[in-house]
Amino acid sequence: MVVSSEIREGELAVEMPPARDAGLVFVGRIRTPWTSRLEAPRQGRLDGPVCRLEIFEPWVPALKGIDFYSNLEVIYWLHLSRRDLVLQSPKNNKSTRGTFSLRSPQRPNPLGTSIVKLVGIEGNTVLVRGLDCLDQTPLVDLKPDRCEFTPLAGDLEGE
Amino acid sequence: MVVSSEIREGELAVEMPPARDAGLVFVGRIRTPWTSRLEAPRQGRLDGPVCRLEIFEPWVPALKGIDFYSNLEVIYWLHLSRRDLVLQSPKNNKSTRGTFSLRSPQRPNPLGTSIVKLVGIEGNTVLVRGLDCLDQTPLVDLKPDRCEFTPLAGDLEGE
Repeated sequence: MVVSSEIREGELAVEMPPARDAGLVFVGRIRTPWTSRLEAPRQGRLDGPVCRLEIFEPWVPALKGIDFYSNLEVIYWLHLSRRDLVLQSPKNNKSTRGTFSLRSPQRPNPLGTSIVKLVGIEGNTVLVRGLDCLDQTPLVDLKPDRCEFTPLAGDLEGE
Repeated sequence: MVVSSEIREGELAVEMPPARDAGLVFVGRIRTPWTSRLEAPRQGRLDGPVCRLEIFEPWVPALKGIDFYSNLEVIYWLHLSRRDLVLQSPKNNKSTRGTFSLRSPQRPNPLGTSIVKLVGIEGNTVLVRGLDCLDQTPLVDLKPDRCEFTPLAGDLEGE
């Protein structure tokens, strides 16, 4: 069973430094079908259920032009995660891996990133497929998938 | 010329809400050859110069096992960016696009993400190719590329 606060055999937690180097503003809220970590998939699928990115004011105008892309990168805050683990035992078998070699939600800055497929836009809400996060996860950023995006400004020439 | 503080014709800035919804701890520092935005490439290239991710304590043990992967996802804080733009004019020609439809560094939470190639590890430092950020950019997170990573724990079975 997945319990977010337990420490497993072999895992190493450090004293968490104060997280004050920079501050985030949540720009929206993610609505998904999953309300517990037991239900949520380990990784999103582009043919998974439609999820909703509800954008908060004053950021709604920042959606202009997003329908130009078919794939988006979503960055969100895994608000239920502990942040102090440096070694983790995903299989709970004493064998450990470093946090930076895992995509576990438990990390010093619990940011999740997913590539999703754009399904549609309804007012302040972006409909996408491909997420795996819990309902009510705070949204941190949204941008075109790097593979699809070409910078609009030129290099140096200032085109 | 790229000037981070200017507002161009047609661009829209909003009153930036206090960025206190969550706090980041910088887990390292990125060393690149670029010290000004005029020099930095608009997008990283996997055959670009080797850059260094210097990991701070107490996070160095979190690197364990990272050499298992050839591609990593790097998340960093674009510390020189303004955060209040919702409409931007990348070509400075009055035509605007929403911030969420751009990969511009100017965004409410100025997080950059790159996929990089792992070149090597030297103590607390990870050598990679593929970045485009400025020297001294704060490092926020490091994880295996999603395409290469398979969750180690099984679904539900608790494998």
